[in-house]
Amino acid sequence: MARKQGSHSEITGPKVHGAALRLFAQHGFAAVSMRQIAAEVDVQAGALYNYTPDKQSLLFDLLKVHMDELLTAHADAGIKGTPLEQLEAFTRFHIAFHLERTDLVFISYMELRNLTPDNFNIIANLRRVYENALEQILIQGQDAGYFVLQDTKIATMALIAMLTGVAHWYREDGRLDLDTVADLYWDMVRKSVGA
Amino acid sequence: MARKQGSHSEITGPKVHGAALRLFAQHGFAAVSMRQIAAEVDVQAGALYNYTPDKQSLLFDLLKVHMDELLTAHADAGIKGTPLEQLEAFTRFHIAFHLERTDLVFISYMELRNLTPDNFNIIANLRRVYENALEQILIQGQDAGYFVLQDTKIATMALIAMLTGVAHWYREDGRLDLDTVADLYWDMVRKSVGA
Repeated sequence: MARKQGSHSEITGPKVHGAALRLFAQHGFAAVSMRQIAAEVDVQAGALYNYTPDKQSLLFDLLKVHMDELLTAHADAGIKGTPLEQLEAFTRFHIAFHLERTDLVFISYMELRNLTPDNFNIIANLRRVYENALEQILIQGQDAGYFVLQDTKIATMALIAMLTGVAHWYREDGRLDLDTVADLYWDMVRKSVGA
Repeated sequence: MARKQGSHSEITGPKVHGAALRLFAQHGFAAVSMRQIAAEVDVQAGALYNYTPDKQSLLFDLLKVHMDELLTAHADAGIKGTPLEQLEAFTRFHIAFHLERTDLVFISYMELRNLTPDNFNIIANLRRVYENALEQILIQGQDAGYFVLQDTKIATMALIAMLTGVAHWYREDGRLDLDTVADLYWDMVRKSVGA
């Protein structure tokens, strides 16, 4: 993912990624051309190749940066305490992080099919690291008697789908603010693990 | 969505829909041409217009038939009994129905953006009918003291996201069969509503 260094590309690079994200989310990866992305950031199509070798790299970059930011933000959240406290913190973190990135949530799900196998494996592995963080909380809570779960792996997949789902229906101008939504989801998550 | 009657189109119509579904799921609606769909079912591009007026109609047909089948299958399932029994039956029905249609689950989520506003509203309304069926179970259960829920609408969205999520990760050759997965999800659903 070589990018030219210097102030020009430091400005244009993020613009290219932003434009690619918007266009991929709107039309789908396969329907968007490098020419369209170039037009969106107002550079010549040829100049776009100074910032990215091809469209595959752009998609991979977007998803890779998304996963890196997720893992960094999760680490920065410094989730600690009892398994119950950790699960609550994880729930609130996951909802807040993904609600701010609904386009990325959308293409992370939708465009996995368009990654090359090598790129897919890298993203899938990062995703697994994140899922494992949740599963570790569930296992600890199970072992310490906080939770009653029949299968911590299934519970992990079920909870992540439930929580990420907020990004599909939540509207900022809707009847509930983010904190209220997080409270309601936490109530259901807590009960679902038998706590 | 006028289609020619007769045995020829009765055979070709479903083939056209099947090909459109496969191609949309693989490449995305915007990247697929009528010509590609025609090639996939081995008819001339011009002949395709005997079966469907345009690509938008094909997408709408696929999503509309999917929702109609969902609502019919849900009615046929004859879900009855106590709210707890109804919720269990709904959980098992939803998982089994969607696991058999993973391509449709995928494009139902991904390609909503490509429907015309009128078509979008029709699909969104059918979806709401289905969501309301679940919410009615939750409201009844809440009123009758089976469930403890803070917000039945949020609970509906949370449960549907959790259950539909199975279609994203389940593999038939995986470690768990469908019945076991349904048992595990039912355990979590039941607890999540406080029952």
